[in-house]
Amino acid sequence: MNFQPLTPELVSAFEQIVGHQHVLTAHGVEAEIYADYGRDHTEDLHFAPDVVLRPANAEEISQIVRLCYEHHIPVTPRGAGTGLSGGALPIHNGVVISTERLNKIIEIDERNLQATVEPGVINQVFQEAVQAKGLFYPPDPASKGSCTLGGNLAHSSGGPKAVKYGTTRDYVLNLQVVLPTGDLIWTAANTLKNSTGYNLTQLMVGSEGTLGIITKVVFRLLPYPQQNILMLVPFRQIEQAAEAVSAVFRAGIIPSGMEFMEREAIAWSSDYLQIPLTLPEDIHAHLLIELDGQDLDELYKEAEQVYDVLGHYDVGEVLLADNATQKDELWRIRRNIGNSVRYNSVYKEEDTVVPRAELPILLKGVKEIGARYGFKSVCYGHAGDGNLHVNIIRGDLNDEQWNVGLRQPISEIFELCVKLGGTISGEHGIGLVQKGYIGIALPEVNLDLMRGIKRVFDPAGILNPGKIF
Amino acid sequence: MNFQPLTPELVSAFEQIVGHQHVLTAHGVEAEIYADYGRDHTEDLHFAPDVVLRPANAEEISQIVRLCYEHHIPVTPRGAGTGLSGGALPIHNGVVISTERLNKIIEIDERNLQATVEPGVINQVFQEAVQAKGLFYPPDPASKGSCTLGGNLAHSSGGPKAVKYGTTRDYVLNLQVVLPTGDLIWTAANTLKNSTGYNLTQLMVGSEGTLGIITKVVFRLLPYPQQNILMLVPFRQIEQAAEAVSAVFRAGIIPSGMEFMEREAIAWSSDYLQIPLTLPEDIHAHLLIELDGQDLDELYKEAEQVYDVLGHYDVGEVLLADNATQKDELWRIRRNIGNSVRYNSVYKEEDTVVPRAELPILLKGVKEIGARYGFKSVCYGHAGDGNLHVNIIRGDLNDEQWNVGLRQPISEIFELCVKLGGTISGEHGIGLVQKGYIGIALPEVNLDLMRGIKRVFDPAGILNPGKIF
Repeated sequence: MNFQPLTPELVSAFEQIVGHQHVLTAHGVEAEIYADYGRDHTEDLHFAPDVVLRPANAEEISQIVRLCYEHHIPVTPRGAGTGLSGGALPIHNGVVISTERLNKIIEIDERNLQATVEPGVINQVFQEAVQAKGLFYPPDPASKGSCTLGGNLAHSSGGPKAVKYGTTRDYVLNLQVVLPTGDLIWTAANTLKNSTGYNLTQLMVGSEGTLGIITKVVFRLLPYPQQNILMLVPFRQIEQAAEAVSAVFRAGIIPSGMEFMEREAIAWSSDYLQIPLTLPEDIHAHLLIELDGQDLDELYKEAEQVYDVLGHYDVGEVLLADNATQKDELWRIRRNIGNSVRYNSVYKEEDTVVPRAELPILLKGVKEIGARYGFKSVCYGHAGDGNLHVNIIRGDLNDEQWNVGLRQPISEIFELCVKLGGTISGEHGIGLVQKGYIGIALPEVNLDLMRGIKRVFDPAGILNPGKIF
Repeated sequence: MNFQPLTPELVSAFEQIVGHQHVLTAHGVEAEIYADYGRDHTEDLHFAPDVVLRPANAEEISQIVRLCYEHHIPVTPRGAGTGLSGGALPIHNGVVISTERLNKIIEIDERNLQATVEPGVINQVFQEAVQAKGLFYPPDPASKGSCTLGGNLAHSSGGPKAVKYGTTRDYVLNLQVVLPTGDLIWTAANTLKNSTGYNLTQLMVGSEGTLGIITKVVFRLLPYPQQNILMLVPFRQIEQAAEAVSAVFRAGIIPSGMEFMEREAIAWSSDYLQIPLTLPEDIHAHLLIELDGQDLDELYKEAEQVYDVLGHYDVGEVLLADNATQKDELWRIRRNIGNSVRYNSVYKEEDTVVPRAELPILLKGVKEIGARYGFKSVCYGHAGDGNLHVNIIRGDLNDEQWNVGLRQPISEIFELCVKLGGTISGEHGIGLVQKGYIGIALPEVNLDLMRGIKRVFDPAGILNPGKIF
């Protein structure tokens, strides 16, 4: 990388564009706030940007990026910083562009079941705004209360409902993007179908802020499913929980949630939240299964079918959540596993994904590798998608063991994923921390194509440099 | 373009690769069959390839393409030749690679609800094979009985069920592709989620055979919906039919089919098929509405809601198809509109698409433009997607009027689409015949990005040259 240092003249130019109060530096009045922009939710990593900019709109971002393009200054776009792969870390310093002020829901178009929003809108804020109009935006990462839609687009975030409704990419119709040259484009049209040229929209989604900065999004929406049923199913054998996942789908049922939690995941989270939960000694894993739709009778019929499937496994007493409070508590437990693990220890989160029927083999493999290399892991995740989050706990590991010693076992976990038809990230992205492993998932020919695409979009190599490959 | 002529040495090399009987030329024993490979279903266009090759597998295609790459020979990949934008026409002559012998369903994986297939499999053959196992592959273009899955991938074909289930691209997990250099890659992994590098899969889908030749596909599948209800709704006012489309969705219903047919579309097709259909004088358009699911009672409840919505419009007597034969006849009428128009006259098909609530404005605009320029059009299509097929009838238009005079009115139709938030192709692609209009939909910055991507994949510019842009 051949970046240039940030000059005082450029900082002045940025102040002209975004206003003095939206330029943060290590020595400015908001130095403490500034420091937060050097971190995200990935382990305990920190990189200091030279300057943090908080522009108000696409035009300001375009002007900033054009200046950085002309002066070879690295630019790292940033949503809420809840990412788990280090994608928002400014590892080459330079400029961080925060989208926090691009936080408007511009239009909810009830005639077309579409919405136009800015990338800094919090996922849950958007969900609640469309729900108020009877509409549904399904992608709901665990961090939905704090993560932004722009960050969700960067990784095509999923969440529990992805199993029935797909991930972020399945709801994007059109994107307004500032390219790494400063040019401002729309990628497509506001239509459900589009066969007009290459799909720049889907290329942008999941590109982790390396091909452009998204400044507006047109999402498609669904009618809101009015009813749901939630059940917590305890399993005496951990692998049977993983096997039952596939069996439910084979019975013709598509749940709106199908979450796997091993014993420690649910125990740590309920402790962390101080929600009392009875966990008999012989229970080693749980499935949290949600069914949704417009008709409660129909859902109860489906629930019967799920019970029939579960009858083939060694399960404990199923908890059927029958009121909103109980449902909410169960989902809070599931959503806070990550936080509870973080509260207990520094950890590395691996976002493994395989075809769903291979989940028992993956889980067994992870535990075997852990036993062999002497580390503990807490496993949970979106079992319906074959997406298992493996949290490797630092515990008593020393720096050498933590920073170097884990490379080999993590490689072995990822090699197992690929062998099973899977890959190394389902929804968290490659970012910084998985970059060293991407060769396990993708051969050099694929990576060369990606590097070529990167050069087409970003000839100066300034946008989120050092990420993915 | 700086292509080299095909030498006898290269033809011999091709014979070595695919076998003598699978190399077709103008002078060979199968000269008549050979001629078919110069046409598709687009108007009355014809371009003669130098040679047609019918390889058996990915490895043979890789060898052929590598030779063509080294010798600068244009290569045009071809499925069944049912395309409507001229995408499979070998306009620079050279080599046509037909995928017809790559016609194996390699695996239907009931554990993972996935299937691995070759691109030359006929859409309907695949649908029926998975249905026999209780599984569902929704994309079903009107030509499903003859079109191939590879062709469907080239344009991300839709069909009636796209309104609920999405288009071809929504079912693709992973693609095996021969790149224009001859390299053979898999684009992704066999997983429902993937956040590992740029999305080469979705870049390949819809690229109309210009970035690579797809040689294997992994599709995801759904449980087969066991029940459906089909209704044919006659409207006295054509624009009310278009308006009712949006109203049904706003009522919270997602039909599995929502097809619009103006009077002439349905009349021509039922005549063509010799299926008697009563069409009262005052009926000017129809909607064909399908609801599907696992529970018939639930569907009847939904049908009641649809009736409630229709009550706000000036409709004739609704025909509720109550047996398989009647349903089949109605769908045959819908699917054969294109054939019936082709039977009556040469025509140009414009694949307009807009946000669905804008459909009445588009339809009105198309008719106004036709009246102003003196051409007749037959309009029908996937109204639930805002995708209106405008068939411009040649009728008595002379060569000048047909080849030159229509350019201005077609441009005006496309400009109207873009003004309404839409674009110029929803599912047929740009190919050859819409290439001149792509600037209406996409600004030069977007086209430059696409050209750059093309150069990354195809540095010699040999693969399906002269298409899209």
